This record gives sequence, structure tokens and C-alpha cells, in this order.
Amino acid sequence: MKTAVGIDIGGTKISMVIGNSQGRILAENRIPTLAGAKAKEGIASLIQNLKNLIASSGIPKKQILGIGVGIPGPVNPKTGIVPVSPHLGGWQGTSLKKIIERETKLRVTMNNDANAAALGEKIFGQGRGVSDFIYMTVSTGIGGGIVIDGKLLNGTSHVAGEVGHMTIVPNGERCKCGKLGCLEAYASGTAIARFAAQELKRHGLSKMMTMMTQGRPLTAQVVGQCALKGDPLAIRLYELTGFYLGVGIANLLNILNPQKIILGGGVFKSAPKHFWKAMLASCKQAAWPDAFRAVKIVPSKLRGRVGDLGALALVFNEG
Amino acid sequence: MKTAVGIDIGGTKISMVIGNSQGRILAENRIPTLAGAKAKEGIASLIQNLKNLIASSGIPKKQILGIGVGIPGPVNPKTGIVPVSPHLGGWQGTSLKKIIERETKLRVTMNNDANAAALGEKIFGQGRGVSDFIYMTVSTGIGGGIVIDGKLLNGTSHVAGEVGHMTIVPNGERCKCGKLGCLEAYASGTAIARFAAQELKRHGLSKMMTMMTQGRPLTAQVVGQCALKGDPLAIRLYELTGFYLGVGIANLLNILNPQKIILGGGVFKSAPKHFWKAMLASCKQAAWPDAFRAVKIVPSKLRGRVGDLGALALVFNEG
Repeated sequence: MKTAVGIDIGGTKISMVIGNSQGRILAENRIPTLAGAKAKEGIASLIQNLKNLIASSGIPKKQILGIGVGIPGPVNPKTGIVPVSPHLGGWQGTSLKKIIERETKLRVTMNNDANAAALGEKIFGQGRGVSDFIYMTVSTGIGGGIVIDGKLLNGTSHVAGEVGHMTIVPNGERCKCGKLGCLEAYASGTAIARFAAQELKRHGLSKMMTMMTQGRPLTAQVVGQCALKGDPLAIRLYELTGFYLGVGIANLLNILNPQKIILGGGVFKSAPKHFWKAMLASCKQAAWPDAFRAVKIVPSKLRGRVGDLGALALVFNEG
Repeated sequence: MKTAVGIDIGGTKISMVIGNSQGRILAENRIPTLAGAKAKEGIASLIQNLKNLIASSGIPKKQILGIGVGIPGPVNPKTGIVPVSPHLGGWQGTSLKKIIERETKLRVTMNNDANAAALGEKIFGQGRGVSDFIYMTVSTGIGGGIVIDGKLLNGTSHVAGEVGHMTIVPNGERCKCGKLGCLEAYASGTAIARFAAQELKRHGLSKMMTMMTQGRPLTAQVVGQCALKGDPLAIRLYELTGFYLGVGIANLLNILNPQKIILGGGVFKSAPKHFWKAMLASCKQAAWPDAFRAVKIVPSKLRGRVGDLGALALVFNEG
């Protein structure tokens, strides 16, 4: 059976795996992402560990179809140059695709991590047999990958699927991207933490949240824990962000009328059921009825493996 | 040269043409749309006039590739049944495609009028040679047609491209569709007229508008005339709606990252230059920079022929 190598490059760690076309992981390795002044060392470490992984797996090279690389930020798959990213200082501008190809003699396919995840869903997950779907990851940020007619939509300048940066409130809260009122500023983990901090400062309404954050930063995870324990303010905050997320999804339904929306990302892990419920309710309200009726909105089941399987899928999607 | 018949069914009139694959109109005919109690008569008149048009054109039937029908509302091109529409009472549920095919022995391709217009742009207009673009019509309402990879995106339940019903202001103004805060409720001709009426009622600021509407309904056209004459309130209203339209277009750029946005519809005809300028400014602000840089935002040049050419394009796109 054919295998591939998948490399998922994140802000803090790089995961590399060898997997087969069924999505079974045969070998794996995790290293820290060294950025900034250590970027050169980081790239060298990536190459060395990659070579070790392949060598120690015992898999003959001719059984490896290629290497898929998922990376944050928009990527031109043809050039495979590391894009500007706040987490990968020092890496940007590197012709990573060419370097890995030269060092391994294997073909490299590189793309944005959310696009890779969408292909991971297409080949290994909830997107199997579905020609038109959108994968959305709701985490610190909100990303997306769009599959139309069975094909990933890269867009004219490789930024299609930036669903987190659709404007959901004109002139609204400032997003980390610098723009105002992005969906990401209203429905991500960052938004949950910011709304919670604002509410605590204004009204100090939640004893539980105040207690749990003694000396610790108020994160979406903490708000999630409080919500799961029944804290009313925490629940209300999830309902609020769920409302905005639902409106954002409805916009995608009205524009693209897909068969499926597949939702992944850390926020769903720590969210109370109120989040999903509020999201569906506002989505139903804001969506064109025929588009809402036609779509299945489902959670991703790839969980912690979405990055690895997405990177593998970049290869198997072409092979 | 091969020809086709195009039928553009609107709320007040039906236009039918015979045209060639260069978009040249060889014969045409216009009849009123009879709806409500007269719907049966209306459909019979459509068939009779269509037969007359073909017969009197002198074009041999074997040189006619087929008949394209553009109609308001979402259409399943396979069944070709008239959808529910406020303007076509009595027609809905009619298997119009089958009736016309039976009566003319020609193949009928039916679709939503905005989708047809997008194909019109693809074959005869600004969409020639462009693989990824969005056609938007800004008129009484806002409609759209999306072409990806050279193909019209119909969507899972034939409602893709309902760009006028993306939510632009959560819980905002009520749209004619019943939902809250749709782009159409903020950036269409209807929105311009409504904003103007609200402003006049609240502040009575525009003498010109007050004068021009003595005893007449305040329409977007009137506001447009006032704006063209320099009325400050009218200009401000166009800037406001232009702002919202730009945000809506930016959302499309961030999601689909197309090569072109093609803008048509009556509002552009009567709008002052401030409208286009405000639209571009807010679009630039709300769009992902790489998506804005990559796109060309251009006016449609099909003008009054967009309905006819769109209907013809439904045939030539398949042929």
C-alpha cells in the first residue's frame, strides 16, 4: 500500500507522520518549532528529523508518494514559500517546498493548514463522498477550506476560504488581522476570552470565573470549564459567540449552498452544548431556508489528528 | 451560425429573443407578464408569442440549439418548475420547461435570472476568459451568480449565489425576505429609498428631495437624481449604501478570492460617483489585502440586454 509523509507546521510544534491512504499512522515524530533568531536552526532540525523519520520507519522510499506540508497562512502551492505568519518569524520567504524536495528527493505539496484540513476531511473524514462542503476550524482564530465539485478552492491569490475574516459587524471589534468586525473577532476562542474579560471588568458578575482566573489569564478554556459547571455568565458568553458563528455559517450557506459544513477546532472541545445550540438557531434564522434545509452541519471527527491527516491528504488528493 | 432562443421572464414583462453565439439579436418580442388570475392566459400567450417569433424569424428550426429561460427565484434546472415568486403568482409549480419543450420540440434550459446573467457575462461580457468571477445585480433587490472554474455554481438545492441575503448587520433592518440585516436591506434600491424616507421623516434635511417627491413615492431613482444634482443628503445616502455594498463584496472576496466582481443592475445607472467610490473604499478596508489586490471590480456592459443575453447564454453554455 502506498504511503505519504505529512508535516503539520504550527506555531509551537511541528508534527510529522508517515501514513497510508487509509489514514493509518505508521510512524510519527514531534519537534518544537524554532522561530525568530532560531529559524535557521528550526528548518535544519525539521529536515534532519524528517530524514530520520523516513529512515527509521523502514518504509522503502519508492512506496512514499510524496510529502504534504500544512502551514499557517496563505500559501501558493506552486512556489511553496513560507508565508508571513506571526508564529513563524524568520521562516517567511523560505522556499520550504524546494528545500524539502532537494533534501528528500520526494515531491512536496504545500498548502494552508485549513485547506489541508479540508482535504483531510475529504479523504479521511466527514467529507468523504461529499462534492461540496466547507471545513471550518474555530480555535484561537477561525480558518476554513472550501471544496467545490470535489476540488479544493484555492482562489486567485491563494486566500480563498478566509471565512474567519468575513465582516460580521461593520465597524465592529478590531480583529487580530487589523480589520474591524471580522467573524474571528466575534466567534473564536480569542473572542470568548475577550468578551469574558470585558464582562468581568464591567460587571464582575461571575464568581466562578473570577475565582478560576486568580493570577491566571482568562482563556476560552477557563470560560468553557465554567460554562460546563453551569456558570450563567460563561454560558451566556458561549451563546453570544455561538450566535455570531451561526450567522457566519449562514452567510456561507447563502453564498455557496453546500451539502455539508464540517466544524473542527479547540473551541468545540471545551464548549457547553449551549454553544452548538445557539449556533444552529442563529444559522437557521439567517440562512435562506432552502440552503439550511439542504445542509448537514456536523462536527469533525479527526480531532487531534486533523493536522496530520490534512498534511497526508495533500499528497493522496493528488496521487 | 448556430442560434438560440432566450426568454427573460420578469415581474411585469417577458422578453424573448433569437440570438446567435456572438450575442447578436436577430429577432425579438416583448409581452406583458400576466400573473395572478390571468396566469394561465399568461403562459398560453408566452407559448403563442414564442411560436410566432420562431416562425416569423425565418430561421430553420435545426439551426436553433435550444431555448434558455431566465426567471426570478431559485430554479432546479433539471425539473424547470417555476419557483415561488412574489411577481409570478399563479405561475409557481408550473412545469414550464416541459411545456415549452412539448410545444416547440426544442430543448429548454432554465435557471434563475441572476445565474443566467452570470453566464451572459461569461459568454458575452466581462466574464469572457475569466474562470472565477461573481456577477452581482444591485437593483430593487440584490442577486448574484457565481462562476468557479468556468462553471456556474448552482448549489446543493439551487440557491447558491444568494449574495443579497448574506447577513451584513446581525439583528438589523428587516429584509423583504423576512430575515434581519440582509445585504439587500442595506445596499439595494429599496434600501436607498427606505433610508431616504427615514431621514426625511426624522430630519427633513433635504429640500430638493422633499420637493421632488411631492405626491410621488420616494424611489431610489429620485434619490439618485437628487444626488447627481448635488443634494448632500442624497449623496450621503449613496455613500452609506455604497459602504454596505463594499463590505458585502469584501465578504465574497475573503471567501471566494475571485478574479473579478461584475456589477450590474439599475442602482448603478442612477447612482452618483460617490456610490462607487464609497463601495471601493469599504471593500478595500474589509477585504483580505491579497484578495482585494487580486480582484478586478468592474461594471457590467450588457446593460438593458443582460436578461436577453443571459437567457441565450443558458443555451450556448451547454452547446
